[in-house]
Amino acid sequence: MAYNLLQGKKGIIFGALDEKSIAWKVALKAKEEGATFVLSNAPIAMRMGAINQLAETCEAEVIPADATSLEDLENLFSKSMEVLDGKLDFVLHSIGMSPNVRKKKSYGDLNYDWFLKTLDISGLSFHKVMQTAEKLDAMNEWGSILALTYIAAQRTFPDYSDMAQAKSVLESIARSYGYRFAKSKKVRVNTISQSPTMTTAGTGVGGFDAFFDYAHKMSPLGNAPAEDCANYVITMFSDLTRMVTMQNLMHDGGFSSSGITEDIIADLKKS
Amino acid sequence: MAYNLLQGKKGIIFGALDEKSIAWKVALKAKEEGATFVLSNAPIAMRMGAINQLAETCEAEVIPADATSLEDLENLFSKSMEVLDGKLDFVLHSIGMSPNVRKKKSYGDLNYDWFLKTLDISGLSFHKVMQTAEKLDAMNEWGSILALTYIAAQRTFPDYSDMAQAKSVLESIARSYGYRFAKSKKVRVNTISQSPTMTTAGTGVGGFDAFFDYAHKMSPLGNAPAEDCANYVITMFSDLTRMVTMQNLMHDGGFSSSGITEDIIADLKKS
Amino acid sequence: MAYNLLQGKKGIIFGALDEKSIAWKVALKAKEEGATFVLSNAPIAMRMGAINQLAETCEAEVIPADATSLEDLENLFSKSMEVLDGKLDFVLHSIGMSPNVRKKKSYGDLNYDWFLKTLDISGLSFHKVMQTAEKLDAMNEWGSILALTYIAAQRTFPDYSDMAQAKSVLESIARSYGYRFAKSKKVRVNTISQSPTMTTAGTGVGGFDAFFDYAHKMSPLGNAPAEDCANYVITMFSDLTRMVTMQNLMHDGGFSSSGITEDIIADLKKS
Amino acid sequence: MAYNLLQGKKGIIFGALDEKSIAWKVALKAKEEGATFVLSNAPIAMRMGAINQLAETCEAEVIPADATSLEDLENLFSKSMEVLDGKLDFVLHSIGMSPNVRKKKSYGDLNYDWFLKTLDISGLSFHKVMQTAEKLDAMNEWGSILALTYIAAQRTFPDYSDMAQAKSVLESIARSYGYRFAKSKKVRVNTISQSPTMTTAGTGVGGFDAFFDYAHKMSPLGNAPAEDCANYVITMFSDLTRMVTMQNLMHDGGFSSSGITEDIIADLKKS
Repeated sequence: MAYNLLQGKKGIIFGALDEKSIAWKVALKAKEEGATFVLSNAPIAMRMGAINQLAETCEAEVIPADATSLEDLENLFSKSMEVLDGKLDFVLHSIGMSPNVRKKKSYGDLNYDWFLKTLDISGLSFHKVMQTAEKLDAMNEWGSILALTYIAAQRTFPDYSDMAQAKSVLESIARSYGYRFAKSKKVRVNTISQSPTMTTAGTGVGGFDAFFDYAHKMSPLGNAPAEDCANYVITMFSDLTRMVTMQNLMHDGGFSSSGITEDIIADLKKS
Repeated sequence: MAYNLLQGKKGIIFGALDEKSIAWKVALKAKEEGATFVLSNAPIAMRMGAINQLAETCEAEVIPADATSLEDLENLFSKSMEVLDGKLDFVLHSIGMSPNVRKKKSYGDLNYDWFLKTLDISGLSFHKVMQTAEKLDAMNEWGSILALTYIAAQRTFPDYSDMAQAKSVLESIARSYGYRFAKSKKVRVNTISQSPTMTTAGTGVGGFDAFFDYAHKMSPLGNAPAEDCANYVITMFSDLTRMVTMQNLMHDGGFSSSGITEDIIADLKKS
Repeated sequence: MAYNLLQGKKGIIFGALDEKSIAWKVALKAKEEGATFVLSNAPIAMRMGAINQLAETCEAEVIPADATSLEDLENLFSKSMEVLDGKLDFVLHSIGMSPNVRKKKSYGDLNYDWFLKTLDISGLSFHKVMQTAEKLDAMNEWGSILALTYIAAQRTFPDYSDMAQAKSVLESIARSYGYRFAKSKKVRVNTISQSPTMTTAGTGVGGFDAFFDYAHKMSPLGNAPAEDCANYVITMFSDLTRMVTMQNLMHDGGFSSSGITEDIIADLKKS
Repeated sequence: MAYNLLQGKKGIIFGALDEKSIAWKVALKAKEEGATFVLSNAPIAMRMGAINQLAETCEAEVIPADATSLEDLENLFSKSMEVLDGKLDFVLHSIGMSPNVRKKKSYGDLNYDWFLKTLDISGLSFHKVMQTAEKLDAMNEWGSILALTYIAAQRTFPDYSDMAQAKSVLESIARSYGYRFAKSKKVRVNTISQSPTMTTAGTGVGGFDAFFDYAHKMSPLGNAPAEDCANYVITMFSDLTRMVTMQNLMHDGGFSSSGITEDIIADLKKS
């Protein structure tokens, strides 16, 4: 069901890797809701080609950009304003990668060059996106900028490793740049902290299945599906949430507010 | 502009006192978005009669209820299901009153009977509303229950007195009952923590103007207007936010995430 | 080992029920550290008589007081200043009781008179203690007032029922009265949020053993023992923590910052 | 007044720049409380030579180390264990520097190489310290590791720039490594979030005086002096706080829990 919530709105969506991606589902919903937008991914992630299929469905152009490269971002924002014929109303940042996690480095044996890379790709890229957008005066007033994050920024999940620090940086940037963008352009900046999700990215993390099941049972409504996350993103891009800014919004079926649940206790009694 | 976000949805809206009330604006928006609902207020608050005008505009029935009275609430929920011809999809709780604040008692000289009254009216009433709804099986699956709150639950605002404790209770009830209602009916329960608002209730608090101005300057987007709050409530009642539960959602122009702002520093330098 | 951290300090310790009580252990430590103090309990809790044995060990007087009764509290503070020959430097509030929990009422079937009783006994009593102390000018400058609380104030633990709301009120009072007492007397007010503890009170809560075990495994250092809690209380009464106020201090072996632990995952895999 | 709280304990104190430094005051107190320790600073910061005077007073050896260099840190921990004749019981991390702040770059015009430098120096260095300590098995069981931080990790202070992100990383590392060190060695890891302080480092931040005054008036007990912070650090190194871990502890005179104060309102009314 569609509501025309984004009628006439223009934007950029980062990170639609394949059809399991939250960003992919956001693109489909945004299209349904009347938005026009550009899709962007790291050149390396695009070789797989799935994104072109999405672009076709959404009548969207694809402009590759390494979100750690200012040059790529400048090109992306400039071209997007051309293609979309105007400034932007929304941006979705759904970008994260940790070489330390990929290479299964223990948290007590991190490679620090990789640690900085994790922070650059998964955290600073959000600042770069906003600094570029602001320098190019690419945002319309009352625009909305969002990044996807995870509760590992607040609590420890051992397998999440240095991504926990990256998400902390990301959420901190949302507050700091949110202040700045509010003053200059009435643009709001928030993060959505999503349940563990069965995306290609999510399932890369070690012991994911047991953990996914735990999180599901610790969430009174269960883990939030990617599709619901996309719906939530749409509300945050709409004009109905204009005064919400510098917030980290939990989209997690209640996980963050649960100390224990009867389901977990029942499981533990069995063991 | 309307989106049909609440097409076919039924609910109860508490606390529409006069046209400055947030609940009043929620009613107007909910009507626009396709909902049908019952309006309810304390019998004592209804003598002024303004609510009948709202009811007419919204084609809504008015059913008085003292939200501290289980009998009144049972009557309200039963009748509402009759009038609306079915179970409910949403409930808005916008109820608060402190005899200690009204009578300007100092926080170091509280009347404890009144303190309990503050908690009963402004906090426990939310539990009573939900316990009654659950006992009467009045909520549809995936329904949404909301209460309005204030950041005094987290930080000290001297003039807010025992209402700070009432809001703490209210938010805590949202979490506790949110767990329960999620498990039994997939119903979500949240609170929205709204900027200081120029409502008839808000302006009753001492030194309100200076404080309103301070909050405005400490909020990068300014204080959130009541109308925007109503919009935000609509998103929380819609199907687009089904996995958000047991949360306290800041609707405050960024106040809660601001440590200091340049506007406040500028003012302080003048003094 | 003793350090003389409370040499010359005077205080009141509420809630030493029996030798498992945290307050009991605080009394023993406070004595070791050089403090003199009065012990107080509800008259009804004292019939068991164990407290007299503690009083003897600590060379402390016992003055019964129902902490919900202003009359009892006035008597307690007046007499304490006489007995101790001066104003007070510290107060420990370790008081909590819920008739709804005792009577095993479901959270969807609460008795509201009892709910208010829970809040009065476990929450408002803390305000009454401070209001009485302030009115009688019973606190020395730079004194320290503490209450014991639990993380159910922030997250949902189904069996904790309306005690969750009581702890929310308690922590909120610490902030509100902390502001007031800081301005008038430089007195600090904090709460310590303690791990589940094998006290007589703690074990009254349903399903406690399974829950205790869960909390232990979710705490990287394990559940904090009562004795360590007493040590922590001593630091908060000492002159080394004079600028810490209006805080809720987690004393929980890391539970509050843990999203998941390897021990829990291992257990769940077995089930 | 001394209590022998650190009798027989050994440690490393980073960041004693000059006599205004919090680390400097911690060193003096730690000495008084019976500890022996090594002082460490970046080689570049030591050219001023003040630290030698402190070393003499404390009978401590000075071992220079760039806290971003693993080689330097390995040398530091190895030599410290030799000098102190045993493993360590405590470590204080008081290290922070932002090239973007120094060069007065606007937050909308950050240099990203410098941003990564800020994170490396002020954040990752804390991980490097702990990873090195763990690899060299340098910590005794029940040891205590602390870093100093600031509330800019939670709320926006415009002049704090990318140091806000650095402090977010720092606090996140405390939680992540705190989990790890708890499991392997029962070592606790925490951060203390200190009031703005008139240190040489603190006063480098722009508009500091107006801000210091604001924070003072927003803190019911006033800004916490460096000396009190040193006292608080001592309690966290002592055996009395063994179960406190993965926490961010506010040492701020109540600033973090204050929404507004009468002093600020009074000032704003004047302007």
